Amino acid sequence: MTPASNRAQNGPEWRGRLFDIIFETDLHPGARAFDVALILTILASVLVVMLDSVETIAESHHRLLYVLEWVFTALFTIEYAARLASVQSKRRYALSFFGIIDLLAIIPTYLSVLLPGSEYLAIIRVLRVLRVFRVLKLVRYLGEARMLGRAMAASRYRIIVFLITVVTAVVILGSIMYLIESPIPGTQFTSIPASVYWAVVTLTTVGFGDITPATTTGQFLASLIMLMGYGMIAVPTGIVSVELAHAVQSARESGVPTQSVLMGGEKMICSGCRSAGHDDDARFCKKCGGTVISVLLE
Amino acid sequence: MTPASNRAQNGPEWRGRLFDIIFETDLHPGARAFDVALILTILASVLVVMLDSVETIAESHHRLLYVLEWVFTALFTIEYAARLASVQSKRRYALSFFGIIDLLAIIPTYLSVLLPGSEYLAIIRVLRVLRVFRVLKLVRYLGEARMLGRAMAASRYRIIVFLITVVTAVVILGSIMYLIESPIPGTQFTSIPASVYWAVVTLTTVGFGDITPATTTGQFLASLIMLMGYGMIAVPTGIVSVELAHAVQSARESGVPTQSVLMGGEKMICSGCRSAGHDDDARFCKKCGGTVISVLLE
Amino acid sequence: MTPASNRAQNGPEWRGRLFDIIFETDLHPGARAFDVALILTILASVLVVMLDSVETIAESHHRLLYVLEWVFTALFTIEYAARLASVQSKRRYALSFFGIIDLLAIIPTYLSVLLPGSEYLAIIRVLRVLRVFRVLKLVRYLGEARMLGRAMAASRYRIIVFLITVVTAVVILGSIMYLIESPIPGTQFTSIPASVYWAVVTLTTVGFGDITPATTTGQFLASLIMLMGYGMIAVPTGIVSVELAHAVQSARESGVPTQSVLMGGEKMICSGCRSAGHDDDARFCKKCGGTVISVLLE
Amino acid sequence: MTPASNRAQNGPEWRGRLFDIIFETDLHPGARAFDVALILTILASVLVVMLDSVETIAESHHRLLYVLEWVFTALFTIEYAARLASVQSKRRYALSFFGIIDLLAIIPTYLSVLLPGSEYLAIIRVLRVLRVFRVLKLVRYLGEARMLGRAMAASRYRIIVFLITVVTAVVILGSIMYLIESPIPGTQFTSIPASVYWAVVTLTTVGFGDITPATTTGQFLASLIMLMGYGMIAVPTGIVSVELAHAVQSARESGVPTQSVLMGGEKMICSGCRSAGHDDDARFCKKCGGTVISVLLE
Repeated sequence: MTPASNRAQNGPEWRGRLFDIIFETDLHPGARAFDVALILTILASVLVVMLDSVETIAESHHRLLYVLEWVFTALFTIEYAARLASVQSKRRYALSFFGIIDLLAIIPTYLSVLLPGSEYLAIIRVLRVLRVFRVLKLVRYLGEARMLGRAMAASRYRIIVFLITVVTAVVILGSIMYLIESPIPGTQFTSIPASVYWAVVTLTTVGFGDITPATTTGQFLASLIMLMGYGMIAVPTGIVSVELAHAVQSARESGVPTQSVLMGGEKMICSGCRSAGHDDDARFCKKCGGTVISVLLE
Repeated sequence: MTPASNRAQNGPEWRGRLFDIIFETDLHPGARAFDVALILTILASVLVVMLDSVETIAESHHRLLYVLEWVFTALFTIEYAARLASVQSKRRYALSFFGIIDLLAIIPTYLSVLLPGSEYLAIIRVLRVLRVFRVLKLVRYLGEARMLGRAMAASRYRIIVFLITVVTAVVILGSIMYLIESPIPGTQFTSIPASVYWAVVTLTTVGFGDITPATTTGQFLASLIMLMGYGMIAVPTGIVSVELAHAVQSARESGVPTQSVLMGGEKMICSGCRSAGHDDDARFCKKCGGTVISVLLE
Repeated sequence: MTPASNRAQNGPEWRGRLFDIIFETDLHPGARAFDVALILTILASVLVVMLDSVETIAESHHRLLYVLEWVFTALFTIEYAARLASVQSKRRYALSFFGIIDLLAIIPTYLSVLLPGSEYLAIIRVLRVLRVFRVLKLVRYLGEARMLGRAMAASRYRIIVFLITVVTAVVILGSIMYLIESPIPGTQFTSIPASVYWAVVTLTTVGFGDITPATTTGQFLASLIMLMGYGMIAVPTGIVSVELAHAVQSARESGVPTQSVLMGGEKMICSGCRSAGHDDDARFCKKCGGTVISVLLE
Repeated sequence: MTPASNRAQNGPEWRGRLFDIIFETDLHPGARAFDVALILTILASVLVVMLDSVETIAESHHRLLYVLEWVFTALFTIEYAARLASVQSKRRYALSFFGIIDLLAIIPTYLSVLLPGSEYLAIIRVLRVLRVFRVLKLVRYLGEARMLGRAMAASRYRIIVFLITVVTAVVILGSIMYLIESPIPGTQFTSIPASVYWAVVTLTTVGFGDITPATTTGQFLASLIMLMGYGMIAVPTGIVSVELAHAVQSARESGVPTQSVLMGGEKMICSGCRSAGHDDDARFCKKCGGTVISVLLE
């Protein structure tokens, strides 16, 4: 019995079984099937929201999309209720990352009755697809995500320094471009905010081309900004590479992954005796020899 | 005699000689000449397919291109037949990577008689150019390709985590942009799919400019997406750098390249006694002292 | 008493207290509040300058923006006077990095009375936001900025070699494109400078699309330039990664950060006995056990 | 006396002195002044060629630009003659990298008498600016350039594998886009070559926007290509980073830079006794204690 799990400790037996199906991937034969069906349903519902925004499709298939939208919302509402019913602490699930996403995924459709247009907010359902990591070999992916997260966290100070520098640079460079380009009749640099937006577009090497310099001076400064952006991309890359190399090396040397950083946390438990406290890369229970699986701390 | 080779074990002697010319690069004096001629022919035939799609050229040189197209197809058909004839196991060649490509390269022209327009599918012939690695110093390139492939394979979990994150991000960001920009009359953000496409264009720093934000809010969000994409490119780069450094280091330390990952597989055999089982970096046969060459397992 | 500090050594007591509030972050209870208020005021004033350049807003809120602009300028003038009054050496502050920025931040508004249009130069105020590093945990950020700066400084020769190569390449490639494209009627490659600008836009993968090749030869050369730019970005990235890895490793091994490179310099002093000479990562005074803080050498 | 030097061994003394001024940077008091003047003249002459291509400037200042162009050409012709006169082996200089560039830099102007329009070819003069490395602290820069060159050379097999893969990918992806997009009326994907050009523009994240997909299928495939390009940039970056790290580490460990790779070669000689054979990082002559300088093997 894992104390970190939100599995119901008492009450009718179906609550425990429901929990195993909905929240865990390996404990119950129906759990994996449930997860796969859930993800396909989520993807289908996201597709419906997307197609509903395409005018030609929305006009010709309005009725179908409308019905499908409500069917998916009904399914997700039942699922949300089942999740709430099966957990020991309602509050803990409701306030967890996925608990909030699950709720936000059903609200927009109901809201659209009162507030037309809000049905598009249902696109947030795509975040529920992140549960896909549970269906795949979870530990492996969580381990990698955690390593990436650790590398990011370790380099956060450097990244903030870099971002503040970049933002300061684009504000100043955008303003200088405004001073250079705005006197030209028919200029696309109509204001400082628009010019700063252009500087971001240019420095990040995106280059939409909706705003472009017309004067030779402007093109010269633009060339400098581009070369700067071309070279500066080396900085975040270098930062992340170095930290990632460090994280990978530590993991290889110690063999003991540290605490989770990226995800809301998960735990290794034995599928036999449900004991916790196993290493993240453990495959067999150190107490009963059963298979060790990972469960999300929902 | 290498068991991995598909060289005919019996039958008339010309089959073995044909195999040496067509499939191996160093065993027969004519083999290298055959390979060079083959690659030049492939490049020429790809050029013909490309030029045939240019309207002005297609109109003025229609007859010439048509004849050339059929000449090349005839040559490739003969070559395919020769390959089939010279190998021991027809089935093994026909189902190998290059066996399938060789077949796909001749089908479109024949198909175009029934289905006009399908002749452009012949562009798949360009894949046959990958045989160029056989003409160049094969082992060297395969070794490098294998190392790159190993680095990629080792970082596949991290790359999948990264891609799922990116796809989730562009769906949500694209939808938010749709909510912001679509109410503007004459907006280019006409639907959620189009907006998600725009988000991909922006996040990957491609920036076509066919769709661009018109509102200040939209430009502000676009700036954030661009900075995000500018910084996030550090993640795959860091991942690949770290794994590549690891792969290179292992290779340098051990000196023994491991199993092939990228290509369909190849083998080191002696050009003298045809014995197999040499190390990938061997230059002389450990049995007879002859030159060791590499052959593709076709 | 730290000799490096510009704190007034004599004169009325309020000068010392004013110095502590304005220049140091941890010594006086009011210092942090002052810093936060200052940064918010700077951001607000930058916003006013930006909004003033948006025609529709400038027209409808002209009076308000005008008044706000002068209020901010008055505040910054008072602040500048207070800084001058509280330091021991007027000259040293006035010629320091932030001293010059502080002055440049107030001049444009006064200048705009004589020279309409120069009020936009006030955007330079955004540089004052760099003081934000003082409000955040200073040492941490300065340490990271210093490390990035060291890595940049260490690779400056390589970066200069790279930049000279890139500039030479774009001049030659741009000129070749001019020779190829300019004979076409209605070409966008109107001159060599414009073509060189296009080459920069292309090589850095920005790709505005305001100038694009129309001939097949031009598109072929453009493709080569793009592939070159796509691959060459690896060079600065590799340079910075290697030096950053080296800088991080040295810092981890020695534990003793070296001299500041990026910023104007700062010093660790004890908030109790004001003694200097502590290590950059010291948290407690080695003389009196008080908390060690960092102060900028203004 | 360095045998590698092309300094005249016999003949009048002025030849030797001329050689010292023109070819070496530290041996003669006038040498550095000559180098600085030369580079400024080159830059000015490049500027004249560029300005001559700007229609408005060419019309209003036609006479001035024409005269300047001939003055610069005359100067460079005299310089070329002086270089030829001062070297021991005319042939060796004429066939060296800079010898060819020096000649190519003067031909276009003479050619323009017969072939109007060829004067723009004079832009090749910009390559002569690479002599700037001689004026700067030569050894330092050459050392860095050499290290970059070594890293590039060491990773050439991997880069060729990468490039062949990229080229194969853009040909196939461009052709697929042509099949998808060309049936649409008014499509911008007018031919396979144009579509392949678009694929290069997209994969390298340049994104001009002159050609953009109009169908949803096309936008979907385009999104995949962009994500592919966004991720694939990690490969060359990783390759160069790893090799550069290796090159830097070897250089640090051995302390003995290896043979030149990038430039045409240079040599360390003593400015006192002119003896050769010093280490690349030597500062004093091991024979006479004089200052060691580097000379290009011209």
